[in-house]
Amino acid sequence: MDRTCVKNNRNKTKSGENGEKRDGTFHLQNPHLERMDEDVLYHLGLNTTSHNFVEMFGDVKFVCMGGTANRMETFAYYLLDVLGLKLPTGTTLIDISRNSHRYSMYKVGPVLSISHGMGVPSIGILLHEIMKLLKYAKVKDPVLFRIGTCGGIGVEGGTIVISEDAVDGLGSSYFQVPVLGKIVRRPAVFDKELIEELKDCVDPKDSYKTVTGITLCADDFYEGQGRLDGAFCDYTEAEKMEYLHKLKDQGVVNFEMEALVFAALTHHAGIRAADVCVACLDRLKGDQV
Amino acid sequence: MDRTCVKNNRNKTKSGENGEKRDGTFHLQNPHLERMDEDVLYHLGLNTTSHNFVEMFGDVKFVCMGGTANRMETFAYYLLDVLGLKLPTGTTLIDISRNSHRYSMYKVGPVLSISHGMGVPSIGILLHEIMKLLKYAKVKDPVLFRIGTCGGIGVEGGTIVISEDAVDGLGSSYFQVPVLGKIVRRPAVFDKELIEELKDCVDPKDSYKTVTGITLCADDFYEGQGRLDGAFCDYTEAEKMEYLHKLKDQGVVNFEMEALVFAALTHHAGIRAADVCVACLDRLKGDQV
Repeated sequence: MDRTCVKNNRNKTKSGENGEKRDGTFHLQNPHLERMDEDVLYHLGLNTTSHNFVEMFGDVKFVCMGGTANRMETFAYYLLDVLGLKLPTGTTLIDISRNSHRYSMYKVGPVLSISHGMGVPSIGILLHEIMKLLKYAKVKDPVLFRIGTCGGIGVEGGTIVISEDAVDGLGSSYFQVPVLGKIVRRPAVFDKELIEELKDCVDPKDSYKTVTGITLCADDFYEGQGRLDGAFCDYTEAEKMEYLHKLKDQGVVNFEMEALVFAALTHHAGIRAADVCVACLDRLKGDQV
Repeated sequence: MDRTCVKNNRNKTKSGENGEKRDGTFHLQNPHLERMDEDVLYHLGLNTTSHNFVEMFGDVKFVCMGGTANRMETFAYYLLDVLGLKLPTGTTLIDISRNSHRYSMYKVGPVLSISHGMGVPSIGILLHEIMKLLKYAKVKDPVLFRIGTCGGIGVEGGTIVISEDAVDGLGSSYFQVPVLGKIVRRPAVFDKELIEELKDCVDPKDSYKTVTGITLCADDFYEGQGRLDGAFCDYTEAEKMEYLHKLKDQGVVNFEMEALVFAALTHHAGIRAADVCVACLDRLKGDQV
């Protein structure tokens, strides 16, 4: 891919469907936040009293999230190289959220590189806190990316998958969560324009393929993704293959475990977001990574 | 608590409701596992070809799991002290799963101390892999503990909460997961005998209180637990308090994010398990940790 082709749209005045305002700031639909003297972003190890968010994060344009702390540290150093940035002599990158022991966060120029752990609840907590961080830092038009790993469905290992839509294990494209004892449903929608911008980045000379399609966001790695090699399995290989082929016929190109809440919460806030994963394997050929 | 009061029941011949056999070994209900030449426990960074599980883990009696890698490393060193074990000169504990970058695992005598991340999917992956590890290591009568943090409901910060039952955000005591496109429901049941053993460990001289009750396993930290301080909030403080008091009246004593799958998968395998958490705060008094 062309490394410079996705631009932060600071100059645009487009209004998001939900929270995004015309001046590029976005609105978090929570009136209680305005009344709080202090906000502790517990899982990021930051709070609005001890930390000056505008000073620390006011220049952020992109937030990149991936599963492991190790990968997001590596990605941060990769960004240093790609962006041609030099750290002052005698300094090194440091995990900004190291005191939380929950996520790891690195900042390289206008990019945050953050680990999100595994599964919807884990990235969900991060999304709540990172969106509040961006709001307190008065960041305009941020773009969020999940850069993860996935299992391809009829998609070879090493292929890049850009999610066009996200569905759960029952085919619903809503993120559903019980709130005060009742289910709240939020549509899981990715920014179509951003997907097109990413597709425009694909270079025919790339050493890997890039595909787009529907992403199945599972709540389990084994039974929830039709694997035969979990601690439990009540179905046959034939039933598994029938299921995988049915998904493929429906346009599902990969399994991962975060897309639904990622699409839903960013869409609800009016923040542009895309889920871009590398396939570790083609699930039509096997289960083990 | 008396540090030595929970015994591994190697000498018992009790048969579990589901998978536990009379000789203490347990049965994972997956016929496919017997037909695999090799099993890669991907998220633990171990596989049955390169690692001799019987030699490495055959003496394991207890598995303790908690959220962060940092806490479980600290707990491992605490165990060294409590169990009066000495490492050979010139050695130190090492994270056995360091190559996976997903979970951290330490072994101290007969105890594994492992991080599980946050939320049902994250601990679910670990449970699948740790139960396979115990099976391959031919461990008999293992006992699993989750030692976590939680939000108390009418329970003061610093109090220890032993879960008697687990429910989801709609009050269901089943772990529900889509498998091949259809919901599979597994009862979330903790071992009553183990709970009694833990209650017997309570010492009136303890500097903290210990309570038991129902645990609400949420899929979100903010809206899913009735907090006012997430990125979004569509309810009032009065509605939140009404909800929390209703939960309290129903016998719910704490919120956390893993109990349901922990109880369900261990029960399904016939493995004894208990969820013991410390309350970080009383949610009747506030939201922020």
